[in-house]
Amino acid sequence: MTAGSRASNWPAVADFAAAPTAADITGWDEADRAARPGRVERLRARFDASGVDAYFGVRRENTRYITGFVLGEGEEKVAGHSGQFLVGRDQTVVLVDSRYTIQAAHEAIGARIENIGYDLPAAWPGLLASLGARRVGIEAGFVSYAMWRRLEAADPAVELVPVEGWIEQDRATKESSELERVAAACSVADRALAALLPKIRPGLTEAALALDLEWLLRTGGAEAVAFDPTCLAGGRAALPHGSPSDAPVRSGAVLLFDFGAQVAGYRSDMTRTLFVGEPTERDLAVYELVAGSQAEAITNLEAALGAEVDLPSGRDLYTLAHGIIESDGRWPPFGHGLGHGIGLATHELPFLSRSASDDPLPSPTVFSVEPGIYLEGEVGVRIEDLILLDAGAGRVERLTRFPSDVIVVGS
Amino acid sequence: MTAGSRASNWPAVADFAAAPTAADITGWDEADRAARPGRVERLRARFDASGVDAYFGVRRENTRYITGFVLGEGEEKVAGHSGQFLVGRDQTVVLVDSRYTIQAAHEAIGARIENIGYDLPAAWPGLLASLGARRVGIEAGFVSYAMWRRLEAADPAVELVPVEGWIEQDRATKESSELERVAAACSVADRALAALLPKIRPGLTEAALALDLEWLLRTGGAEAVAFDPTCLAGGRAALPHGSPSDAPVRSGAVLLFDFGAQVAGYRSDMTRTLFVGEPTERDLAVYELVAGSQAEAITNLEAALGAEVDLPSGRDLYTLAHGIIESDGRWPPFGHGLGHGIGLATHELPFLSRSASDDPLPSPTVFSVEPGIYLEGEVGVRIEDLILLDAGAGRVERLTRFPSDVIVVGS
Repeated sequence: MTAGSRASNWPAVADFAAAPTAADITGWDEADRAARPGRVERLRARFDASGVDAYFGVRRENTRYITGFVLGEGEEKVAGHSGQFLVGRDQTVVLVDSRYTIQAAHEAIGARIENIGYDLPAAWPGLLASLGARRVGIEAGFVSYAMWRRLEAADPAVELVPVEGWIEQDRATKESSELERVAAACSVADRALAALLPKIRPGLTEAALALDLEWLLRTGGAEAVAFDPTCLAGGRAALPHGSPSDAPVRSGAVLLFDFGAQVAGYRSDMTRTLFVGEPTERDLAVYELVAGSQAEAITNLEAALGAEVDLPSGRDLYTLAHGIIESDGRWPPFGHGLGHGIGLATHELPFLSRSASDDPLPSPTVFSVEPGIYLEGEVGVRIEDLILLDAGAGRVERLTRFPSDVIVVGS
Repeated sequence: MTAGSRASNWPAVADFAAAPTAADITGWDEADRAARPGRVERLRARFDASGVDAYFGVRRENTRYITGFVLGEGEEKVAGHSGQFLVGRDQTVVLVDSRYTIQAAHEAIGARIENIGYDLPAAWPGLLASLGARRVGIEAGFVSYAMWRRLEAADPAVELVPVEGWIEQDRATKESSELERVAAACSVADRALAALLPKIRPGLTEAALALDLEWLLRTGGAEAVAFDPTCLAGGRAALPHGSPSDAPVRSGAVLLFDFGAQVAGYRSDMTRTLFVGEPTERDLAVYELVAGSQAEAITNLEAALGAEVDLPSGRDLYTLAHGIIESDGRWPPFGHGLGHGIGLATHELPFLSRSASDDPLPSPTVFSVEPGIYLEGEVGVRIEDLILLDAGAGRVERLTRFPSDVIVVGS
């Protein structure tokens, strides 16, 4: 087969859902706007147990979720206090400086927009007084120690209460429009990899392929990448945290892609390990064991739904999938977790790992299942899919549709 | 003139320095390695005045500057504690989890690499004891309040001292290999915009042009973009913080690009306001006033060097350039600062603004000079160049070489 031709089991771009339309985006915006009051109420429902009467948030994903105001990835570093927000008993306040007033008025519908410039401590006493708040829960994992001290000094009459994970726990349970967007992001990624397949050939560098893949994502419906795409060739695929280098794709070795798209704020994440030229028997066996480990976790989830018993915990699924590789005994199982929730952030609750919660998984939700085997300097195989879980609807569905069969490219 | 032809005063790609070579990159790596012990000594020289015997750093730019360990932009969000570091009186320790051990050993030459997994508080007492440290200066603007409390509880015998801006102040003064990399990043950006000029035509969207420009940067020598490129057409260029939209380029209006490249860790930043078709008299006059404001600041700096008087402060230059537009009186001057230092971060010391330091500028250093005039809904003009200042060498040099004359495109 010559390079560029399509192998018999390759997916085609047209196999996957088309990129989202402007109408899709508008519909999701409207769904968000309709859902936001409920999200705020869930947050307020936590106030009494902690004795707080307001919440101060700074994390960009939480800003978008609660207020609708959108900051790009990393933009919070240059946005000053813009996008930080207060939720009181009766109203939500979004802080901005003059650069962001127009945007905030457009996006944070229903919130009070306060232009506080660049000096939060100076504005703090007035803001809290306007909410009638005396004890404020603060995202302590995201506010710096220096800022905390400045806020404390700015109004000694207001008590600052460290809180962590409130909105993050709420975000783990997904609304249907959130799940739709993750699914749409998965389709964009499916299409991008399908379009890349014919271009892969020995001699191309990891970095060049990663850039091609990013281009396909960004011109194929993604408003951004979920993270910098990874492409690792041969033994480099065994690097648990490698990034694309000038190393060339070689025949007779694996080629691992780990990448995701962002659609209307929501993200996808997928890993495929392809074979460049005919796989060796050992590599094939590694691949099949990893695929079997992943299948076991998903089957277990389906069985729990069918039997109408409690959902497994993230730790349960980790233990099960990890145990498949461990008990096989031929190769060491992955040292990382089995998976993570995904949504506005690439990594969010629920986590599937050794140290994850023992509680049953939330529902509806979506998370990755991504076992792997890494033989240093020789081969690395990881297969990662996003799984939608909706217990109420009896639904376990793979949102990443790109096949995870053995796929041979570039030969 | 037909679209795609080159106008008489357009720069050509070949007018600018070629993209950095592998030998350049290697040379800069070696220069960094040679400079690092001196950087660590400058940091330690601050210990006595504050009575600390160690420094705990978490900011990614500081990690790279002090230890050589490289995290990509935003990677610190998923890297756990990897890349965080301690500088004691006698040694530097870089913290990693298992994902980063190989990379850290390769990059953080001379440092002790400690695999602490994901639990810093558990490792904290042992780490501090290994350095013989009892009072640790901590980057209080970057460590979260929650983590600070956990470290405090982990070893009550170790006192945590909030420090801010130590390494940032050191980074404001640049080594020659740092200045070379900023200059190389400027050339990559110059070439990218020169290559884009013939493609610009009415009807293309801001978003499409921004993506084209990003592609030219990333295939033209940039290892990454310094930030998401901005492209704003017509009245949208007056948005002080706009991002590229589906708005089309229109004839008879301005087209503003704000963008930068990253080369071997160091960044560039440039704004050019082009004219699509013949400019109106008003827009030309706005442009000339902005250009005059910028020229005044640079001339003042040159004059100070020539007269061998104290360097102006960042606030002086701001006041001067802002005053040119203000005293002209026809249009309101820019509401943002006049400029910012640049290096490992896009925005760093020194700042040139109303609230900036009154101290003379550091030297050698590099910063942007970027006055603007914004008429809401009508037109926005900003011209941004990077200026290298080396008082010892009597040198004031514009590193962004793309001409800032009036350039007409797309007609």
